[in-house]
Amino acid sequence: MNFLEERIVRDGIVKEGNVLKVDSFLNHQMDIALFEKIGEEFKRRFEGKPINKILTIEASGIGIACIAAQHFKAPVVFAKKAKSISLEGEMLVAEVESFTHKCKNQVIVAKKFLTEKDRVLIIDDFLANGCALQGLIQIVQHAGAVVEGVGIVIEKGFQPGGTIIRNLGYQLESLAIVESMDSGTGEIRFRPQDR
Amino acid sequence: MNFLEERIVRDGIVKEGNVLKVDSFLNHQMDIALFEKIGEEFKRRFEGKPINKILTIEASGIGIACIAAQHFKAPVVFAKKAKSISLEGEMLVAEVESFTHKCKNQVIVAKKFLTEKDRVLIIDDFLANGCALQGLIQIVQHAGAVVEGVGIVIEKGFQPGGTIIRNLGYQLESLAIVESMDSGTGEIRFRPQDR
Repeated sequence: MNFLEERIVRDGIVKEGNVLKVDSFLNHQMDIALFEKIGEEFKRRFEGKPINKILTIEASGIGIACIAAQHFKAPVVFAKKAKSISLEGEMLVAEVESFTHKCKNQVIVAKKFLTEKDRVLIIDDFLANGCALQGLIQIVQHAGAVVEGVGIVIEKGFQPGGTIIRNLGYQLESLAIVESMDSGTGEIRFRPQDR
Repeated sequence: MNFLEERIVRDGIVKEGNVLKVDSFLNHQMDIALFEKIGEEFKRRFEGKPINKILTIEASGIGIACIAAQHFKAPVVFAKKAKSISLEGEMLVAEVESFTHKCKNQVIVAKKFLTEKDRVLIIDDFLANGCALQGLIQIVQHAGAVVEGVGIVIEKGFQPGGTIIRNLGYQLESLAIVESMDSGTGEIRFRPQDR
């Protein structure tokens, strides 16, 4: 197990309905020393890529993206989520449908912060069905920018998001991929990773 | 002018209705090198305080708080905003009314992440009327924790939030305090600061 998988086993809580609670260190309370390790690992996995911008989505992606950005010497842009907003100024908007929740959401970035010069690393805390991520990719493409890679902290390997993104040819690096969880025993199994 | 005031003058845009747009470096696109300087300055201003937790509020406070937290070796907790949510687990909730928008919002933190052992530094990007900040202070007090200080990046000195918080006896450190802005000329005047 890598440092993150060890932490998930130690402090993650498996709840019914395939819910993994990691709010004590990842997405409500945030362990900054852990984020520094996560940032280093993203840097290692995307070494050599000409990344000049980090894109994430509010709210829980922001902290991870900001700490990781220190290794890439790149600014972070965070997309906003909205049910529907009145657009002020020129915006890049992707409409994404939640497969599970059957609701539509907008993912929004101001046009001026993503241009055709940008080589983008997308960072987020979780990947499950990948709806938000699909919206972020759509926005990068609308901007004429390039997705250099996608860095995810925890992927739920038993949901389709990861497969979809890899099928589309993107370099997706998930630092921990949960293969299965058991809310009865609390057991968490991870997909083995080469590196 | 300090480093932040210089940056605001260079890249901030004054709009009608006393709106200061700093979304190119602070709260949509985020300049991480600038955040590092902001974090260092918060560390200097709160030197010697026994801070063991940083509290902020989604979304635009999170990045600043995470970078600043590297100097305090403390975890960050971010409060969630909601119109009204179904509470799962034990939550600390403050209801705050927006003076300008005449609407009520909830500020929410899971109880387990703020306890009577915590000595809290509250960090946020903007302070205007201070409604969100009042909610954060209320939550810290509900938890039996102590507010050691409040660190704000930009205070609108012509709105009442800063005065209220200082009147209540808190150490409020705003790295830039805007005294007045002119959307016609684009001029921004700052309150002089000793340190």
